[in-house]
Amino acid sequence: MKNSSSLEELIIALRCLPGVGPKSAQRMAFHLLQRDRPGAARLAGALAQAAARIRHCEKCNTYTEEELCTLCASKRRDASLLCVVETPADLLMMEQAHCYSGLYFVLMGRLSPLDGVGPRDIHLDRLLTRACDGVVREVVLATNFTVEGEATAHYVAELLLARGEDGPKVSRIARGLPVGGELEHVDSGTLAQALIERRPLAMAG
Amino acid sequence: MKNSSSLEELIIALRCLPGVGPKSAQRMAFHLLQRDRPGAARLAGALAQAAARIRHCEKCNTYTEEELCTLCASKRRDASLLCVVETPADLLMMEQAHCYSGLYFVLMGRLSPLDGVGPRDIHLDRLLTRACDGVVREVVLATNFTVEGEATAHYVAELLLARGEDGPKVSRIARGLPVGGELEHVDSGTLAQALIERRPLAMAG
Repeated sequence: MKNSSSLEELIIALRCLPGVGPKSAQRMAFHLLQRDRPGAARLAGALAQAAARIRHCEKCNTYTEEELCTLCASKRRDASLLCVVETPADLLMMEQAHCYSGLYFVLMGRLSPLDGVGPRDIHLDRLLTRACDGVVREVVLATNFTVEGEATAHYVAELLLARGEDGPKVSRIARGLPVGGELEHVDSGTLAQALIERRPLAMAG
Repeated sequence: MKNSSSLEELIIALRCLPGVGPKSAQRMAFHLLQRDRPGAARLAGALAQAAARIRHCEKCNTYTEEELCTLCASKRRDASLLCVVETPADLLMMEQAHCYSGLYFVLMGRLSPLDGVGPRDIHLDRLLTRACDGVVREVVLATNFTVEGEATAHYVAELLLARGEDGPKVSRIARGLPVGGELEHVDSGTLAQALIERRPLAMAG
């Protein structure tokens, strides 16, 4: 096998995929060679095309092949709502929930002083300009509920609220039990938050 | 995101990798776009090159870029020993064990009547010709200890042993406990085989 340098190179190259170690890379390479050569050709083409064509939307930062992504270009979306997410994958999850009709701003990261990620790296200047353009009425902070995501949400909220009357309303997506969640199986931090952030109920009818 | 057809195509193409479902494919695509564009380009090149250059060794069937693989072309290997394995990955595992100096024959599969894989599909005619060429003295059967691997080994052994004096010796790699294995944690089938195939010990010195 020692002269199969194309094979060795393929195995090494496959390891750039997240979660793929030497063993899986070898299994993937043999699978492609043995059972799915058309799939390998398709993947090669898709990778090259994606790298060449995909760039960031000039308005919201998500991935697109045009100047603006479909969402930012759409006239059906409610431009008065602006949802702030960390990554394009988060945007996709929000869209898959089918419950939001506004626009987005993708930070492409989160504040993380230990990793040297500051406000400029996550485009907060652009977010601020956009949020205070007079069109946006409410900014929905949908960063993750991790330490860094929470810190980012807090920081952005402070910046926006400092604008007072000129700025938009600011909200944060809710914490609580997941749909179908059972008290017995949820962690105590989530349960505590669900209790603190409980909502008043009114009589129906 | 709906106009990012290159992104969708990349996510679909990544699913040709074994063990990669829709969620991992999406994660891989975003990882490549966000953090490792050079890695994506390298992978695209490696895939295209592998598909174009890698073919089967004319003597042993394993993957190579030449007519013969390095092992078959080498003069250092013992041509009187021929090890029969199911796949190029198995050959690689044998080589990594650093205990075998003979040559190989890769079946590129195993007998599996239910999947329509017969003797011709695993090149048994070529194996037989090779094993009885007068150079090979012993054929070591190293197919897997699965039902199909065992059936294949049995079938090949019968074919070779039928040659009688003209044919080579035939052996099968040993079954037993793995190195570092503990009786408590091994399955009873393996333990039973280890007992049946026990080896006599002699006094040292």
